[in-house]
Amino acid sequence: MKTTILINCPDQSGIINAVTGYIHKAGGNVIYLDQHVDKDANVFFMRLESEFDAYSFSQDDFSKGFQTELADRYDMQWSIHQAVPKPRMALFVSKYNHCLYDLLSRFHSGELEVDIPFIISNHSDLAYIADQFSIPYHHIPVTKDSKEEAENLQLQLLKEEKVDFIVLARYMQIVSPKIIDVYTNKIINIHHSFLPAFAGAKPYHAAFKRGVKIIGATSHYVTEELDAGPIIEQDVTAVSHSHSIKDFIAKGRDLEKIVLSRAVKLHVQRKTMVYNNKTVIFS
Amino acid sequence: MKTTILINCPDQSGIINAVTGYIHKAGGNVIYLDQHVDKDANVFFMRLESEFDAYSFSQDDFSKGFQTELADRYDMQWSIHQAVPKPRMALFVSKYNHCLYDLLSRFHSGELEVDIPFIISNHSDLAYIADQFSIPYHHIPVTKDSKEEAENLQLQLLKEEKVDFIVLARYMQIVSPKIIDVYTNKIINIHHSFLPAFAGAKPYHAAFKRGVKIIGATSHYVTEELDAGPIIEQDVTAVSHSHSIKDFIAKGRDLEKIVLSRAVKLHVQRKTMVYNNKTVIFS
Amino acid sequence: MKTTILINCPDQSGIINAVTGYIHKAGGNVIYLDQHVDKDANVFFMRLESEFDAYSFSQDDFSKGFQTELADRYDMQWSIHQAVPKPRMALFVSKYNHCLYDLLSRFHSGELEVDIPFIISNHSDLAYIADQFSIPYHHIPVTKDSKEEAENLQLQLLKEEKVDFIVLARYMQIVSPKIIDVYTNKIINIHHSFLPAFAGAKPYHAAFKRGVKIIGATSHYVTEELDAGPIIEQDVTAVSHSHSIKDFIAKGRDLEKIVLSRAVKLHVQRKTMVYNNKTVIFS
Amino acid sequence: MKTTILINCPDQSGIINAVTGYIHKAGGNVIYLDQHVDKDANVFFMRLESEFDAYSFSQDDFSKGFQTELADRYDMQWSIHQAVPKPRMALFVSKYNHCLYDLLSRFHSGELEVDIPFIISNHSDLAYIADQFSIPYHHIPVTKDSKEEAENLQLQLLKEEKVDFIVLARYMQIVSPKIIDVYTNKIINIHHSFLPAFAGAKPYHAAFKRGVKIIGATSHYVTEELDAGPIIEQDVTAVSHSHSIKDFIAKGRDLEKIVLSRAVKLHVQRKTMVYNNKTVIFS
Repeated sequence: MKTTILINCPDQSGIINAVTGYIHKAGGNVIYLDQHVDKDANVFFMRLESEFDAYSFSQDDFSKGFQTELADRYDMQWSIHQAVPKPRMALFVSKYNHCLYDLLSRFHSGELEVDIPFIISNHSDLAYIADQFSIPYHHIPVTKDSKEEAENLQLQLLKEEKVDFIVLARYMQIVSPKIIDVYTNKIINIHHSFLPAFAGAKPYHAAFKRGVKIIGATSHYVTEELDAGPIIEQDVTAVSHSHSIKDFIAKGRDLEKIVLSRAVKLHVQRKTMVYNNKTVIFS
Repeated sequence: MKTTILINCPDQSGIINAVTGYIHKAGGNVIYLDQHVDKDANVFFMRLESEFDAYSFSQDDFSKGFQTELADRYDMQWSIHQAVPKPRMALFVSKYNHCLYDLLSRFHSGELEVDIPFIISNHSDLAYIADQFSIPYHHIPVTKDSKEEAENLQLQLLKEEKVDFIVLARYMQIVSPKIIDVYTNKIINIHHSFLPAFAGAKPYHAAFKRGVKIIGATSHYVTEELDAGPIIEQDVTAVSHSHSIKDFIAKGRDLEKIVLSRAVKLHVQRKTMVYNNKTVIFS
Repeated sequence: MKTTILINCPDQSGIINAVTGYIHKAGGNVIYLDQHVDKDANVFFMRLESEFDAYSFSQDDFSKGFQTELADRYDMQWSIHQAVPKPRMALFVSKYNHCLYDLLSRFHSGELEVDIPFIISNHSDLAYIADQFSIPYHHIPVTKDSKEEAENLQLQLLKEEKVDFIVLARYMQIVSPKIIDVYTNKIINIHHSFLPAFAGAKPYHAAFKRGVKIIGATSHYVTEELDAGPIIEQDVTAVSHSHSIKDFIAKGRDLEKIVLSRAVKLHVQRKTMVYNNKTVIFS
Repeated sequence: MKTTILINCPDQSGIINAVTGYIHKAGGNVIYLDQHVDKDANVFFMRLESEFDAYSFSQDDFSKGFQTELADRYDMQWSIHQAVPKPRMALFVSKYNHCLYDLLSRFHSGELEVDIPFIISNHSDLAYIADQFSIPYHHIPVTKDSKEEAENLQLQLLKEEKVDFIVLARYMQIVSPKIIDVYTNKIINIHHSFLPAFAGAKPYHAAFKRGVKIIGATSHYVTEELDAGPIIEQDVTAVSHSHSIKDFIAKGRDLEKIVLSRAVKLHVQRKTMVYNNKTVIFS
């Protein structure tokens, strides 16, 4: 039975030895270990994949011992994850379909190990895709006046369906602190520029105007400051004077869907850790 | 004899036909033609490489006819270039040697078709490289008080040696309008970030702090507004949480020298045209 | 009315002038011209996009004149294309769904300017996707014994539906000369390696065994020699020792669908020309 | 004092814990750990960077204990390295200067932590570069008849100067088993293609003929089978129909020098391990 443990704590000598010793003693075999030290912040990060015997292993006992023997001693923040149950992912969309299609076709072919209880949209345009994949679609319009009510409804759905994390697949509304506070570092957005260049609205138009030779896309966790959250993944593609804004947008679509999918996969595989508004991305 | 003609003018019907007809009539054979229309600005750009018979061709006669028959009629800005004499390139450096080494080794192996009358530096550190390649090195210190005097001296040297264009190969001083005005769209700088992200000083530190997953370098023509001139070439490389600022700088050096060399080559081959603070880069 | 003309002929002086002159005389305005000379083969290639007045332009008259005034004189092979009717594209698939989903979602969002009369498969597995997009799905099993019969059936369907070109979206059968002869340079395949490395079956396994640090995908026109046809588009992605064959395959899927889609788009936009088993790809 | 340990052994439970425990007990602090398991071959690989107190640490005592307590028990192949003395690198070149210039300018600016006792060449062409950098240059011509004698001379120089590893910076002679046997996995070559495509001579010509859209360069350890040794690093760049063979070669030069430099750096930092003709490259 594969188990993933994520740890961060103040850096100090002997942590790797202590943690691998504890896992070993508990009958586990460490099959993958990745670690990082942020020397400026003096923080140690580690991700371990271990194999335990499914019959004899008790996660409760393991966790209690881990907390008292290690976490308390080293001042660790830590979490432990099994492959099942799968994390529950909610999708928020507006009118663009490319990221939605990409995520759903990956989900459909078993590439994304998640459950998708529903899709929420402020428009009805993409309901047909939800139908194609037999996933409930909640059309919750958002206007200036209805925004608070809409968010309450969103939160209720998220709660009812025990959603673990949210993916904004080109959702064109600003998510308010009310939701961010509940899903801290659990809302993944795709921004259609190479952040921090061209934050805000209409980045392709801004990039075109500036005459850049490369455009990009950035997937990040959503924080209260717009387009300023911890970056999970970025990628770029070359453009030239011969490309129109329409070409920028078309080329950008391919970037956006690839970058967002990669970020979602990293999150699902518990390979992301957040610290000081930056991410540690384990391989 | 290979001849390169660059043209821009208001877009209108029949220009390609008129120009190729004129060249044909003058005994030339168009061997390469690249053209672009900026539809927003309604400007037509064209670059033609033609072969003429070296004995019978008179550039003076050709140019007079071109001006009266075509340029006046179509309201063209245009220029004509032969392979010889080679353009004369001045290099400005400070303390970093990687771009200088890269340019000089390319020059040395015949990859860059230029003459290099001298290197100017505000420091004496890189004089030994000038010695290695037997190129005159002028150490012109720049302080707050001596800046004007230094620039006068620079201008004098540029004039004496009939310099055609200037390459700032990690020159850590701001070039003032006095020189920019004389060398408009003829000063090539390398900025160590993916502009417009991280303009200004210490871009690697800013990129590190923001936690980006990709860093870049940008070569651009120098204008009065700092780091805001027309972009000639950009490239990027991936970084991760495991890279320190020192790693960013080391990886960046490889980008900087490649990007700057490509930009210089494009300029030397007359493949760049500037319009509305953007470049048209012909292939 | 936008019209695209493709030309190739023995290289000689004055062609650009002659062709642009003819178009000009016929009331057209050349809005984009791209040309290339293969100096080894002494062949001239040109692609022109022109605007004509939809009311006064007769393609028949234009073509007759073009043939007698230009094509006969310069020994040209040439073709002329309008945006409508859209080219008709048949899709051949087997069991992998990623390329099919990618092409159909692009088609669905208007990115691919084609009609898709049907999907053919030697398996029934992907019929559900055809249903999702309401496209007829013909399940034509292929066994050693039934191969000839199957191909006759395929040819009949292709003919009935006036199919212009075929896309093999991970179709795991070898297409025989009977079909290739009818669709010369009109069958686009995606091969899951960086050809010519790892031609043939199981390229990811071969790449893994060789310990390469980069894997690729190649889209090419199908010729009788397996995996040896003219290359339209290639792209690559980095891998490391830490990736398993399963990881290679997953990373490869993203390459395959992007590379195939780009190749299909280039074909649809008439930007590909084939010569000496190589392609000229206009931008 | 930073110490690097490299280990490989049959995979088994508890290794990480045992090794980190031993280092901890010896007064060391593990500052970086990277590990990999080749599941097919059932081999475990690990690289550890540790800090020891320079005054109290005895490498001899550490190594003896490591051997008896760990290496014998787990059937390990292992090695231990300090930052000083620097590894001694011999350069072999022929007539191309780009890789040589690149390596020497990196060496000169402190980026490559090596000593370079000499450059060997079968031609005298690049002696001037050795002069520029004040490095001894041995011109050892190689003809069919003199090959054995030349190699004996090379071996003698390598031995006299206690050379640790050899870099073939576009050395156009085949290195014979006599030298490979002494420097197994210690001779780094740069091949100017994306191996295994276009192995052997004239790869750019072969790539041009095949009409590929991407060319590459590959750095690998030299084995007796030509161009078939373990790959350390690869990179690629896009080409098109518009590039001539000369363009391929010019673009390739930039790839070659970057790829070779990266490989040399990885080797110097002890980040490469070889197994089953493949490399594990730690980050």
